[in-house]
Amino acid sequence: MIRDTLIREFKTILGAANVFTREADRCAYSYDSAVLDPVLPALVIRPETREAMGKAIRLCNENKLPLTVRGAGTNLSGGTLPKKESVVLLTLALNRILEINEQDLYAIVEPGVVTARFANEVAKRGLFYPPDPGSQAVSTLGGNVAENAGGLRGLKYGVTKNYVMGVNFFDANGDWIKTGARTVKCVTGLNLSGLMVASEGTLGVFGEIILKLVPPPQAQKAILATFDNTERASQTVANIIAGKIIPATLEFLDNFTIRAVEEFSHAGLPIEAEALLLIEVDGHVAQVEEDAAKVEQICRAMGSTSIQVARSLDERNKVWEARRSALSALARLKPTTVIEDATVPRSKIPDMIRAITQIAQKCSLTIGTFGHAGDGNLHPTILTDRADKEEWRRVEEAIDAIFDKALSLGGTLSGEHGIGLAKLKYLEQETNKASILYAQRLKKAVDPNYILNPGKLVGE
Amino acid sequence: MIRDTLIREFKTILGAANVFTREADRCAYSYDSAVLDPVLPALVIRPETREAMGKAIRLCNENKLPLTVRGAGTNLSGGTLPKKESVVLLTLALNRILEINEQDLYAIVEPGVVTARFANEVAKRGLFYPPDPGSQAVSTLGGNVAENAGGLRGLKYGVTKNYVMGVNFFDANGDWIKTGARTVKCVTGLNLSGLMVASEGTLGVFGEIILKLVPPPQAQKAILATFDNTERASQTVANIIAGKIIPATLEFLDNFTIRAVEEFSHAGLPIEAEALLLIEVDGHVAQVEEDAAKVEQICRAMGSTSIQVARSLDERNKVWEARRSALSALARLKPTTVIEDATVPRSKIPDMIRAITQIAQKCSLTIGTFGHAGDGNLHPTILTDRADKEEWRRVEEAIDAIFDKALSLGGTLSGEHGIGLAKLKYLEQETNKASILYAQRLKKAVDPNYILNPGKLVGE
Repeated sequence: MIRDTLIREFKTILGAANVFTREADRCAYSYDSAVLDPVLPALVIRPETREAMGKAIRLCNENKLPLTVRGAGTNLSGGTLPKKESVVLLTLALNRILEINEQDLYAIVEPGVVTARFANEVAKRGLFYPPDPGSQAVSTLGGNVAENAGGLRGLKYGVTKNYVMGVNFFDANGDWIKTGARTVKCVTGLNLSGLMVASEGTLGVFGEIILKLVPPPQAQKAILATFDNTERASQTVANIIAGKIIPATLEFLDNFTIRAVEEFSHAGLPIEAEALLLIEVDGHVAQVEEDAAKVEQICRAMGSTSIQVARSLDERNKVWEARRSALSALARLKPTTVIEDATVPRSKIPDMIRAITQIAQKCSLTIGTFGHAGDGNLHPTILTDRADKEEWRRVEEAIDAIFDKALSLGGTLSGEHGIGLAKLKYLEQETNKASILYAQRLKKAVDPNYILNPGKLVGE
Repeated sequence: MIRDTLIREFKTILGAANVFTREADRCAYSYDSAVLDPVLPALVIRPETREAMGKAIRLCNENKLPLTVRGAGTNLSGGTLPKKESVVLLTLALNRILEINEQDLYAIVEPGVVTARFANEVAKRGLFYPPDPGSQAVSTLGGNVAENAGGLRGLKYGVTKNYVMGVNFFDANGDWIKTGARTVKCVTGLNLSGLMVASEGTLGVFGEIILKLVPPPQAQKAILATFDNTERASQTVANIIAGKIIPATLEFLDNFTIRAVEEFSHAGLPIEAEALLLIEVDGHVAQVEEDAAKVEQICRAMGSTSIQVARSLDERNKVWEARRSALSALARLKPTTVIEDATVPRSKIPDMIRAITQIAQKCSLTIGTFGHAGDGNLHPTILTDRADKEEWRRVEEAIDAIFDKALSLGGTLSGEHGIGLAKLKYLEQETNKASILYAQRLKKAVDPNYILNPGKLVGE
């Protein structure tokens, strides 16, 4: 319970319409997209200005009230799950695109701007913002930075961190911290912008983000290659990269996922295929032609059963929309969907896919596997029912086995979904005690009252 | 003075041949490439193994001995200047390239590997490591990461930070911290690798660095365009970028620099030109042809007096070597050379160059200006004699004016040379008190005895 006098103070700062106390209102912010038990926050606030946000943060700190910042709540690791008796701060009213600078190729945005809206506005000006997380239609740029969101284009274009030129943020005390610049090169002070990326709201509350833009590719070509053998499909991924071709996207779908997607989207995917690769090359027209020809040749050499090139933008978009629906399509099939994102060096994709199949068999589970094979980032998706305790035990066993395998292949626990609460217990397995302690010391130094999204990423 | 028993302990850990106590030996490490008074360290150590390095760091911490890590000492802001009565740790014996992974496009190196040697080894395997700081022939990769070194290719390829996938380092206590991964995507834990970049040795001592590699461009074309008017040359830079062409390099040299370089290098530069642009476009053959044609067209439209395209690799290399000699060529002319790297958004390059000319006139100083105009990163280089106190006062006045102007144009104090000691007093002007305090809190949390390069970057 937060006492009434304090709630009145929040109302004075934010306006009564931006302070939510009713359970029905708070309920919507008690969960995110991870499979974890909901936690009801005590208060939900929605600042409309940067100044009000700073004051609200300071008020939280003075009262040692934990504070979880929330964009669209699409994160998959519990990063936006509030603490009990805490405050959820919504960024959705801070949704202004403050500047798109066409000459100098950067933009300045507030944290609540929706990713796809921003990408569209940038495209209208003839520029390109490449990061495209699966949830881009609703996810916010603040959330993307806090999670270092990836997406389909990570292979060629990198992830969110590669586009963050600066982050201005409030520290736990509501003081305004400036870091980074409008220039590509900047080494003024510690790289706090870099530290903010992927910090999951544990070190500050973003107020303004400076993002890098690039000229768009001149042309692109989408190729759909089917395989009657998963092994050959996954080896094709490794061969394309080893051939020094860097496609914009290189996606893998197994038969289970293909069927689920086709049933959901009716995009005309080949439901008989054991696996398919969706490959898009982009760049200069001549480069695209050359790369596409090389990709086709590699697919053919690896025994691809059919190779289709999208003949129109419509045809291309239809296939990509189908791919983007993979998680939703799988999630319909069972009450609980657990999507993982363990990531391995690209050449280890065949080993990883093989291991996932074996783990599914050993644990008697249904696992649909798809994902960004080109950057080693697969999404094995376990379809289950959390209410079934016996099966859930096997799910946990499978997750452990997936992480063990990824790490043994020189990979990482999480490519793009974050640690949050869901993967905290695995952190030491990839790093070590000293590394966790180092992070905890940093956290404590700038947030001595532990109010900024406590318990996430760096632990308690 | 460090007591004899402690020196014996260092000798036990590192071997007697790697512990230097004689003044003649220590003297070489009392300065770096910044214009600052030398400081003699009490002890110089040269670990040959990672393990020995960790133990030596722990010994420093236990004895509260300040520790400055040094690669080649090429940094320009005093970042490798030791504290009095302190230890300098040389990385030059930790110079192994541990892995170049051609399939997965990464390399793992020790901090003392020389940049150019690494780039050559990578090139031999048909891959490309783009960052090319001016001092690459001697600078080390550890130093490049600690300073977030830039270079000529920043415009298209980014700077060192864009190639750092992971940094494993020792904390102040000699504990081993693991962060980052061999994969493009990794969000396991706080982005400590990002924090290490540009941290100037204040937060940890690098042991292993994981660097991203890319396929090399298929083709390149170098263009040398001369102008009889500086204003038109600088406007050409802005027009090329606004035309959505991203050259690999886009360098500017004013007449003073052209003359100095030509006298030094005899590369055949046009000494009558008021300014020249060196432009290299790269990528797919067809892309290169198209971009080069557009660049030529823009140069012509802006009244370029001559446009030359390098006809051979030899011709190209000769011009780039000449450009790379700019600082050395200027430095010969006067006893003291002060090179700045204030950086502005690219469209502000004409304003910045105009301002530098005015500042040189107003302060009656000789300033040669050249640099990475394409990414807004100019190097106004003041030729002076520090012994001339009256002139030195005007030099300081000019530096203040250059920083004021860069910041008023939305730029930054330092694009790539770092803050070190030289620019510490300007830090607050670009950021604010709270930002400096935030950085100091982080520093203190992981280095409570303030042994890691104390006084640099974040202040005391």
